[in-house]
This record gives sequence, C-alpha cells and structure tokens, in this order.
Amino acid sequence: MTVRIGVIGTGMIGQDHIRRLSRVLSGARVVAVTDTDRARAQECAGRVGARVCENGADVVGDAEVDAVLVTSWGPTHAEYVLASIAAGKNVFCEKPLAESSQACLQILDAEAAAGRRLVQVGYMRRYDTGYRALKAVVDSGSIGAPLLMHCAHRNPSVPGHFRPESAVTDSAVHEIDLVRWMFGEEVVAVRVLRPRANANGGGLQDPLLIILEMQSGAIVDVEVSVNIRYGYDIRGEVVGENGTAALGENSPVVVRREGGLTSPVPVDWRERFSLAYDRELQEWLDRVATGRDPEGPGSWDGYAAAAVSEAALEALRLGDRVVVKLR
Amino acid sequence: MTVRIGVIGTGMIGQDHIRRLSRVLSGARVVAVTDTDRARAQECAGRVGARVCENGADVVGDAEVDAVLVTSWGPTHAEYVLASIAAGKNVFCEKPLAESSQACLQILDAEAAAGRRLVQVGYMRRYDTGYRALKAVVDSGSIGAPLLMHCAHRNPSVPGHFRPESAVTDSAVHEIDLVRWMFGEEVVAVRVLRPRANANGGGLQDPLLIILEMQSGAIVDVEVSVNIRYGYDIRGEVVGENGTAALGENSPVVVRREGGLTSPVPVDWRERFSLAYDRELQEWLDRVATGRDPEGPGSWDGYAAAAVSEAALEALRLGDRVVVKLR
Amino acid sequence: MTVRIGVIGTGMIGQDHIRRLSRVLSGARVVAVTDTDRARAQECAGRVGARVCENGADVVGDAEVDAVLVTSWGPTHAEYVLASIAAGKNVFCEKPLAESSQACLQILDAEAAAGRRLVQVGYMRRYDTGYRALKAVVDSGSIGAPLLMHCAHRNPSVPGHFRPESAVTDSAVHEIDLVRWMFGEEVVAVRVLRPRANANGGGLQDPLLIILEMQSGAIVDVEVSVNIRYGYDIRGEVVGENGTAALGENSPVVVRREGGLTSPVPVDWRERFSLAYDRELQEWLDRVATGRDPEGPGSWDGYAAAAVSEAALEALRLGDRVVVKLR
Amino acid sequence: MTVRIGVIGTGMIGQDHIRRLSRVLSGARVVAVTDTDRARAQECAGRVGARVCENGADVVGDAEVDAVLVTSWGPTHAEYVLASIAAGKNVFCEKPLAESSQACLQILDAEAAAGRRLVQVGYMRRYDTGYRALKAVVDSGSIGAPLLMHCAHRNPSVPGHFRPESAVTDSAVHEIDLVRWMFGEEVVAVRVLRPRANANGGGLQDPLLIILEMQSGAIVDVEVSVNIRYGYDIRGEVVGENGTAALGENSPVVVRREGGLTSPVPVDWRERFSLAYDRELQEWLDRVATGRDPEGPGSWDGYAAAAVSEAALEALRLGDRVVVKLR
Repeated sequence: MTVRIGVIGTGMIGQDHIRRLSRVLSGARVVAVTDTDRARAQECAGRVGARVCENGADVVGDAEVDAVLVTSWGPTHAEYVLASIAAGKNVFCEKPLAESSQACLQILDAEAAAGRRLVQVGYMRRYDTGYRALKAVVDSGSIGAPLLMHCAHRNPSVPGHFRPESAVTDSAVHEIDLVRWMFGEEVVAVRVLRPRANANGGGLQDPLLIILEMQSGAIVDVEVSVNIRYGYDIRGEVVGENGTAALGENSPVVVRREGGLTSPVPVDWRERFSLAYDRELQEWLDRVATGRDPEGPGSWDGYAAAAVSEAALEALRLGDRVVVKLR
Repeated sequence: MTVRIGVIGTGMIGQDHIRRLSRVLSGARVVAVTDTDRARAQECAGRVGARVCENGADVVGDAEVDAVLVTSWGPTHAEYVLASIAAGKNVFCEKPLAESSQACLQILDAEAAAGRRLVQVGYMRRYDTGYRALKAVVDSGSIGAPLLMHCAHRNPSVPGHFRPESAVTDSAVHEIDLVRWMFGEEVVAVRVLRPRANANGGGLQDPLLIILEMQSGAIVDVEVSVNIRYGYDIRGEVVGENGTAALGENSPVVVRREGGLTSPVPVDWRERFSLAYDRELQEWLDRVATGRDPEGPGSWDGYAAAAVSEAALEALRLGDRVVVKLR
Repeated sequence: MTVRIGVIGTGMIGQDHIRRLSRVLSGARVVAVTDTDRARAQECAGRVGARVCENGADVVGDAEVDAVLVTSWGPTHAEYVLASIAAGKNVFCEKPLAESSQACLQILDAEAAAGRRLVQVGYMRRYDTGYRALKAVVDSGSIGAPLLMHCAHRNPSVPGHFRPESAVTDSAVHEIDLVRWMFGEEVVAVRVLRPRANANGGGLQDPLLIILEMQSGAIVDVEVSVNIRYGYDIRGEVVGENGTAALGENSPVVVRREGGLTSPVPVDWRERFSLAYDRELQEWLDRVATGRDPEGPGSWDGYAAAAVSEAALEALRLGDRVVVKLR
Repeated sequence: MTVRIGVIGTGMIGQDHIRRLSRVLSGARVVAVTDTDRARAQECAGRVGARVCENGADVVGDAEVDAVLVTSWGPTHAEYVLASIAAGKNVFCEKPLAESSQACLQILDAEAAAGRRLVQVGYMRRYDTGYRALKAVVDSGSIGAPLLMHCAHRNPSVPGHFRPESAVTDSAVHEIDLVRWMFGEEVVAVRVLRPRANANGGGLQDPLLIILEMQSGAIVDVEVSVNIRYGYDIRGEVVGENGTAALGENSPVVVRREGGLTSPVPVDWRERFSLAYDRELQEWLDRVATGRDPEGPGSWDGYAAAAVSEAALEALRLGDRVVVKLR
C-alpha cells in the first residue's frame, strides 16, 4: 500500500522530506501540502503533483491524507499533532514535539485517550548506523555496564536567528534523546558549564559543557560547539566497566598530500545524517502502511526531551545542578 | 512516472533487486517476473503483486513492462539483452553482459543499430561513496597524474561452485571495470602472478596478484584473496605524482576491549555495497522514468571488462604478459 | 662530562631509573644508592657498580654525587629535596614533590633562597611526543584559542594499596600538571563528579569525572577510570575556536582477523610512556652536565599540582566546586 | 664496560651516529675519527673529544679502538670491513656491505676464516617497533601462513646525485632485507615493472613496482616512489591465509581543521626511523660490550641484499623476471 502523506510546512526540512518521500523512499506519495507562504507551498506541491491546502487543519482533515508530516514552525507543532490524533491519523512531527514539556503532556494525554500510538518525533539519530552499532555493543554487555558517555556536537556555524537557548533546544536536545535511548533510562539531573567563549560566536555563550546524570548514576558529558568552523562533527563514546565503544571516524577517502594524511569531515548535518533521515521515514512508512504502531521515538520521548531541555536551560541560568522532574 | 519493471531471474541477486525496487527505492514497480524455477518465480511475484511470465522473451514482450532487469544465469544474459534492445526497452543487466567479449560485440552492434543507449551493466562500485570520493580526488588533480593503483579484493570464502577462473571473472572483474572508470582509459595488458596458495582454498589457485597496465602507462595491482576468512574487505589506493588517495576505513563503531581497539569488517559484499546497489538502480530508474539515456556502465564497458578478463585468464594460463585487444 | 647520580629509593620506579641511567641514556653514572631495604639497595648497587649509602642524607652529602634522584616513598620526598637544595645539588624528584602543598611551599622558599633552580619534578608527560605535538598545534594558534580539553586516563587495574584519593593524587595529578603546561596558566577551580561505580573496583569510587577550570575560562574534563581492564589508555583533545587537536591513536601494527581490524592498546604506563621517561631524564642530564638550570617541571609546578589535587579531594568530599588557592 | 668506537667517515650518517653514540646511547665513547675531508673529521672529533686518524686503516689499527663503525662512501666499505675482520674487531657497517655481491662473498669468507661473527650491517628496519610487531604477528601464526606482502617506500624527493639504479640499491634494498627477515627465507626471483613516470622525477624511472618471489612461493610487491612530495611514508602489510597484519599509521597528533582531520606524515627517514637507529646501535653495543656476537643483520644478509639488488637491476634492464642466484 502506498501511504498518502499530507505535509504541513514547506521550509527547508519540509522540502527535504518531500523530496525524500517522492524521490528516495518506497511506498509514499505526497498528496497534500500547506504553508503560510502559499507560493512556496504551491511550488513544492507542483513538483510532486500534490494539492495545496488552505492550512494545517485542512491537511489533517483531507480524506485522501493517510498520515501527516509536521514540519512547520516549532510553536505550531502541538496544534497539528493534536489535530492528527483527534483525526485518528498517524503523525510524524519534526522536533520539538511541542514548545514546552507542559504542552507535550497534553499530547501524551490525547494519545493515551486515543488508545493507540499515533505520534513519532523526528529524532533521527536513533536510525544512524553508527549509533545503532554503538547501542548494539552496549546492549551486548561486552563492555560491561555503561558508566559514562562522552559526546561532542559540533557545528561549523549557526544561522542568524540562533538564540542563546538554541544550543540546548536545537543542538544538545539530540544528545538528550540519544542517551535516553542508548542507556534505556531517564535523565535525572543536569548541569551546564560555560567554558571560555568562542570569539566566532559573537556574544553567544558557546561552547557549552552539559552534564547529564542518568537514573543508574551513569554520567554523560556533552560538548556543544556551534561555531567551530572546521565542519559538522558528532562524536560519542560509551565507557563501560571493561571497555568502551565509540562512533567510528568515517570518511570515504583518505588523502596523503602536503605533509599530511587527511580525511574529510562532513560539512553539515544533512551530509552526516542523510541516511538516518531516509531510514527514519522509511521505517515509519513501512509500519504505517501495514497498520502497525510506529516504533520510533514517541510522545513520551518528545516530552522527556522537552523536560530535560527545560532543566538544562534553568541549569544554565542558575549555574547549578537542576533536577529533572518527569510526570 | 513509475517505471514498470520486468525481472528475468529470481535467484539471490534477482530477489534482492526485487526487494530493492519494491521496498527501498522510489519510482518503480515490479510487474512481471520469470524464472526457470517456476515455483520460486511465483513466490517472488506474489510478494510484490507481479504477474509470472512463461519465460524471458515474454517478460521483454509484455506490454506493461517499461524496462527489463536481467538477473538470470550468466550464459542467458546476452539473449535477453538483445531481445530488450530489439523491443526498444531499457535493460539493466547484472554482470556479465555476455559470456564472451565476442558475444558482447553483438550487443554493441545491436545497440548501435537501435540508435540509442538502452543497456546498463551492473558494475555497482561506480556508485559507491568511497570510490566516488576517490575518483573526485583523482579528477581534481590534487595528487597529480595517477601513476599506480593498489587494490585488494578479499572474500572470506567462496561457494562450492566457484571455479578456478571465477577469481578473475566474478571477483577481479569489478576492479577491471573500476579502474577503467577511475582512470578514464582502457587496460592494455595483463599479468597474473600466482603466490603461494592458501590452504583454505582446497586446490584453488588463491590468492592471485593481477597486474593491469593502462593506456597511460599507469599500473594497477590487484590482490584477489577469496578464502581469507576474516571478512569482506575491499581496498584501493591511487598513487599520484604528489600524493595518494585511498578508500577510507569505514566502521560504524570502534570497541576498546581486552587489550585492543577493534573495528568490525563487513561480513560480505551485500553489507559492503548495499548502498551502492541502491544508488545504482535509483539513478537508472530516475533516468528511465524521465526518458533520458542511462549514464552508468554500458555495453562498451561490459565488452571491455569481458575482453580484459579473457586476457587475464590467458595470462594466468601462460604465466606471461598478455596484451588486451579491443575492437 | 658524566653526571654522577645518587639514587634514594630502589623501589619499582627507582630501579627503572637506575636501569635507564646505566643502560639506556648517555652521560650518567649511578655512583651511590640507598634504600630502607638494604638488601635491595645492595643488589641494585651491585648491578651498576655503585656504592651503598646508609641513608638519603649520606647520598646527598656524598662528595662524588653530582646530582640526586629521589625515588623513595612519597612522604620522604620533601626531606631529601630540601637536603639537596641545602647542598647546592640538582635534584630530580619523582612525583609528588611533597606530601602537601604546604610542604611544597617550604621547598619553593628554600630554592628561592638558594638563588637558582635546583629542583625538577617527574611529570614525564611533558616529554611525550604526542603531548608535545599537541602543544605545538595549540601554541601555533592554528585552532584558535583553546576553550576546552577532554582527557581520559584509564588504567586496567590498580594495586591493592590504592586508596580512594589515589585516583586524584596518583592518576589525575598527571593531567593536572599537563593542562597547566599545555594551556600555560593555572587551574582556578575544581569539581569532581561521581559516576556509577565500576563493580571491578570493589568499594572504590571509580570512575571519576574531574572538571578543571583554568584562569582563561577554558574547561578541562578528565575521566579517570582505574579498573577498566582493557589496557592503559591515555587520551586528550584540545578544542579551540576553529578546530581541535587530539593525541593520535598509535599502534605499531593493525591486524585484520576474525571479523575485525584490531590495534593493540598499551598494557601499562611503562609501555605508554617509556620514551617520555627516557627523554625526561636525558634532557635533565644534558642540562645538569653543562651547568644549566633544568627546564622541566619545577618546584612551583610541584606546588601547584599539590594545591589542585588538594582542592580536588575537597571537591570530591563536598560534592561541590572548590576554588584553588595558590600563594 | 664502555665500548670505544672508531668512526670511518663523517658524512651525514656518520655525524648522526657520532651524535647518537655520544649523546643518546649508553655505554659507548667515540675515541677515533677519520674522513677524507680532514677539516670535517677534526670538527666532529673535537665535539666529542676524539682523536683524528690519518685514514681508515689507522682507525682500525688504533689500539684504543674496540670496535669500528664504517660510514664512509659505499665503494670503500669492503676494505674497512675486511681490515676490521683481520684485526679481530667488531665492525658495524652502514649499507651496502660492499659494492657487489662478489665483494660481499670475500667478506663472508674472511669472517668464516676468523671463526666468529664480527660484522653487522646497518639494516635498521629490523629494529623498528612497527616491523617488530608485524613480525611478531606473522610468527605467532595468528594470520596463518604468509602468502603476500604489500610494501610502499615513498620519499618526498631525492638528492641530485640519485642515479637510476638508486631506487633499487638505496631505497628498495631496505625492503629486500626486510622481507628476507620477515619471512625467514630467501628471495628467489625478481621482476621490476615501470609505471608511467612521475614528472617530478625529471628523466628518472620513478616509480617502480618491484615484485619479489620468496622460496615459499610468497610474493612481495614493493612500490618505490622517490619524488612523491607529500612526505616520507613507509608501509607494509602481510597477507596471510586467515588475515593480514599491517604497519600502523602512527602520528602523534590529529588535527581537525578546515574541513578535514589531518595527521602529519614524517618528513624524512630520520624522523621515521630515528628510534630504530638508536635501538640498532644500542643492541649492538650491548652485545659488543659483553663479548657476545652481534645478533643483527650480518655478512650473509649484506650479501643476499646485494645479490637480490643486482637481480633487480638486471630485471629492470631486461624488463623480465630474473632468478636470484645465491652461493
């Protein structure tokens, strides 16, 4: 069965998903599209033979739409997710699930009331080959119980609209979701340390060193550097009792030239996680097409990520350890 | 436009391509299938809602079939490729294009008579991220003119039906196609050296060290080891005037444990080249769907690979250098 | 000129230095030796043709001894260093310089009164090829101002006499000295976090995650894992404004076998830092032989390391950030 | 016992060995020096307090000289080695042992007549940590019987006096000695292939691809590139029945900067093999000092290397396979 998708929001990520659904993946057709910028919506719809809807509610309500993809501006996510749940339709929502943990709870409740899983949140790292291999090693027990994890999240630069809190809510939130999944447990407390600021960042507090404490007592440190120029570099190493497991350095080619041996670093997140995005949507489509609940990150994960992010922002403000309170 | 595909041959690679066309890629539908083993054909067809045809000719002739995929037993390839050309349909043929360079010439002539490119041969390495990055470095000129290339082609083991010549015609033929594409020129002579034989190989002459001479004078050495047990390992390094470029070591995870730091090696060619197969067919589909000629390896490449393989087998027999004669 | 050395303490490290001075390095002769275990002293002395002295004071006072090597039990270091200063002799003292920062101050004062540098402390990492290359990159400015450093200090296991505080005073103290030297500035505050404990460690609090704040605001995190079984592994990466510099993974050989590609990890600190120890003593000898002041870590470095260690132990006790107070 | 060394020849390598014996290693003293350039000899002697001798014969004959180091111009080696044997003194001779395999045989005979091993030839790679680790893996049997070895010997550039045959006699001769030692068997035949020439090399035939056949049937391919600009790079991988073992990529530091992850490559052979030279001479000194025969490469090795080199030069001239004839 081909899944007929309605897309709400045709910004950068929305367009990328439309391309993916239409030209890369199997089993989907984009049939309806909307955006506050109607011209842009029309252009996107035209390319794939979809109809343009007036607004998100119309997309959700469209009888031909089997499932909804929410890629609109963050503050509008909750509304469309709730509408999809109300309509009994599967909804794939780009992060964040909602603007606050409080708003996420509403979604959790609505989904519970609906009696089945309808929501998946776009934390694509769980679909990355590297992280999956890392988790397989951890789960195998071959390095013993995990005690620590070291992460680095490096961006070459950030767009003009990047706000002080974005390093947490846009960047580190990926690691927050990731370690919950990797360790299979919740984050219970957060600290955020402020190293000397990078002059590349203007007035921004960049980098950050975020310390997450897990229920088991395991500790995760996350370097977030968002103006490091050299490339997009994501690293992670789990330290266990008897060994460690780390993401590999992957580069297609190694060049020996002018005194050195050089491997390229990805230029941005699209290059680094392109396959994870593909797999994330394909696995979701496969389950939707066959009437099975999605297996990826769900409402609770969206809620927990929001709650930990809020605690991290408070920790950054207070300069102190903040306990995460989950429902 | 969805390309409607007819598949001739439902062995291992045929089944894998059917899965790929139906569940991984975008823009294709398998509509007709045949195999000498009718039960197997029926099972494969059933899974994707395709019709079973009596034989390859019927698949080619089927009015609903837009393009043909030939994945049958090697000796039958030429017949179906020629039929497809006669029918004016695009045909994707797994290697070899035909059983001999002589038979390839017939296809070349038939395609020329048809007046357009209709044939693509399944040399998937040209679609591998690593080899593409390697070629991009070579083409950029940053390491100077290429003078040498070192290749290794290692299989953990081979199936029972592996014949003495298979190390050339099934294994090294990939490097033969690869270096023609990488260097943009033909192979002019071949030597095959016989190192001490691997006891794992029974009576087989394994490994081989194949030496290819290119038109420019560049030399390529290819180690073919088909019983090396430890994994499937493909390596390549181009040596230029001012530097070298090599395939990277790619592994998703690095484990530190018991005195060592270990990265996994792929277990087989499916794992190693899975994405290359996907991309190969997707790019072919994209061109077929839009009425453009395929860009991948064509009849001439299939012919040249056959001619060089034949020279290599003669060189192996003679223990001497053999000149490659191309039309 | 051959430097005639008197050695106080013939335990493991003392014996290793005697071997080094007698059989590896150039320009030294061990002429006098003492130890509380007289038989052991005699055996060591016999091997290199040295005389056995009654005690440390006699070694220092021996007219034939040009310079003193203190490798005795930690609590006795200060006494012999002070005696050497009083005798106007160069003294190389294994870490720690003294049992407390307070005791180090006495040495600082005595050396100041003597009017010249006479003391070098055995922080050998400053002589490691890797750390030197790392510092050269940082100093070159090519990665911009350093903002963060990530360190890991991993021991396969620890001896029975390892005390709770040893992870700081014996292990992390190397990183403490190292980052002062690497960044060219003092540590101003310390935190010590306690991850989930490694069951390999018995009741020990292991691992630790130590956070050092530098004067410039740069932050250093140090994982200390002392029961990680897999090997002795020392890692470090400096994160600058535009890039990073990390210690290389060095292994003499890479083996492909049984599904993986494996490099050995050093078994212990002797293997890892053998050349650094050689170079440390050779450079010290070269300067002593030519009447120049030693250039390596001196009394102030010994004092600062002690003060930061004390702050770290207090931070571990309090579970809080502790400010380092230097004279 | 301190070994008193007489040095014949104070060119680049001679000076380097004098520095090594005087300032790096343990247990040696340079007491006599000679050179055809007397001023240079005087300067070298002055630096280490040695006496200048009239000529090589005087050095060998000097009563205070315990052992001789021959670092003069290649064609003079045999004369001084023979004189040392006649005088019953240990002699360490830089490669080549003599200018021809024929001349080496004279030395072999003279040493046999003397009734004990007196000669060591300066093939320092046997002392390299990497090659030793590689040999340990091969000898352990963990990769099965060795079947192939791939080597690369790359120089950034060559001096003006580099002759066409130097790529064999100065460069590849190191691999020739190395593989005899690595495999524990002789080279029985040689081929030399001429790839497209590097324009950096002027008229030189560079690179070469040398193929060595061992007694066991194992085959070694050696790329010799002597104008490759990017650095001094030595590589080797032994291919066994069940796996492979390769020299590690060793670099002290890895820098992430401007889109790439870069490790430095050594600039020249001094940087790459500095420790191997140290260890080679130290082990030789230790044996000489204690009256034991040297264990390093001896007269037979010098002879075999010469004979294989001669065969390689003939193979290069003839463009054919040449059998190596050893006494």
